Amino acid sequence: MMINKTQRSQLDSRYRAMLVNSLSGFKSANLLGTCNLDGHTNLAIISSVFHLGADPALVGFIMRPHTVQRDSLENILATGVYTLNHVNADIWQQSHQTSARYDANQSEFDEVGLTAHYLNECNAPFVKQSRIKYSVELQSSQELVNGTQLVIGEIIDIHVNEELIKPDGYIDIEAAQTVAISGLDGYHTTKQLGRLCYAKPNIDPQLLDDSHNDQA
Amino acid sequence: MMINKTQRSQLDSRYRAMLVNSLSGFKSANLLGTCNLDGHTNLAIISSVFHLGADPALVGFIMRPHTVQRDSLENILATGVYTLNHVNADIWQQSHQTSARYDANQSEFDEVGLTAHYLNECNAPFVKQSRIKYSVELQSSQELVNGTQLVIGEIIDIHVNEELIKPDGYIDIEAAQTVAISGLDGYHTTKQLGRLCYAKPNIDPQLLDDSHNDQA
Repeated sequence: MMINKTQRSQLDSRYRAMLVNSLSGFKSANLLGTCNLDGHTNLAIISSVFHLGADPALVGFIMRPHTVQRDSLENILATGVYTLNHVNADIWQQSHQTSARYDANQSEFDEVGLTAHYLNECNAPFVKQSRIKYSVELQSSQELVNGTQLVIGEIIDIHVNEELIKPDGYIDIEAAQTVAISGLDGYHTTKQLGRLCYAKPNIDPQLLDDSHNDQA
Repeated sequence: MMINKTQRSQLDSRYRAMLVNSLSGFKSANLLGTCNLDGHTNLAIISSVFHLGADPALVGFIMRPHTVQRDSLENILATGVYTLNHVNADIWQQSHQTSARYDANQSEFDEVGLTAHYLNECNAPFVKQSRIKYSVELQSSQELVNGTQLVIGEIIDIHVNEELIKPDGYIDIEAAQTVAISGLDGYHTTKQLGRLCYAKPNIDPQLLDDSHNDQA
């Protein structure tokens, strides 16, 4: 079926939000750890982190200032630092729960049962239960459209179990049980189809030697 | 283990790219369909599409102008329209192959074995083998950092099998076998853990009635 703009404008707003949020495809699942200048911690699940460069190592994400993410954005602007922590299959429900509208004086860490810990002099809190995490220094924050805010930062310290890093630098985020998000509320583990070699014209796609492929 | 900025600067550049590209988490997998003013088609896999709003329905993605994606960006700026097509488990290898450095006069559709088709007067080509796809009208294009380009557009027509849409508007992208990407070259199918209700303070996370949960 086809759904055009006119048809979408007539949909219930919650239905339309569900529909459109599903269209981008699978989303990354990260917990954003921040604190204010008094050290009061905040934790928010975000599904929009994206890669922006490897050298310097840059990541971006989208925030909606008029939502429960308001405290996180204020903390980032005040302190200039934050952490990103992969959501894994052991903590997906607690991670989702951070999106509840808690009061500013409540810490989502305590409310949902995740543990704040501090690594290598980074002022922002990491999530102890996360297996792949890194600190980020704010580089820029700009408004895009409809009040959405694009936050860009440089990756500082990466914390990851050495066994998850393959010989070529690829981190096996599936082995870490990192989850993917669909729509507004769907959580998924993954099953690797395979890794493919760098593509070249007129050479058929080739699996990397170390990748498994159940369809082979 | 911890990897800091100084250690990263000493890594081989390909290793560093693999490592940092893995950090954002799972990425969406989409084929970007464009054509130039003569109607010559172009198809490129991109892993950075992200949701920006439901009303108006906006999506953004990141391009690197100095790569094989150059033709796509030129086409978008020239015609103002493009298509986004979910990569699924039946076409993941052909989709990856679109990243090969083909000449400007070659169409990736022909080279990798995917079929261009045209729907509802949209000038840009869709991918016939994709099960969830939509046309997009360019809204803005801006440089971010290090030459990366942020392209924002408004979703026009959505083409999706009606059976994939749940009663609340959620599209079951897992049932469509949409894949997720890890790092630069990892492809994954998914297995849903569940969908969770809108989170509220002091109420434990609750599974939506219609979602399955193998861990329950």
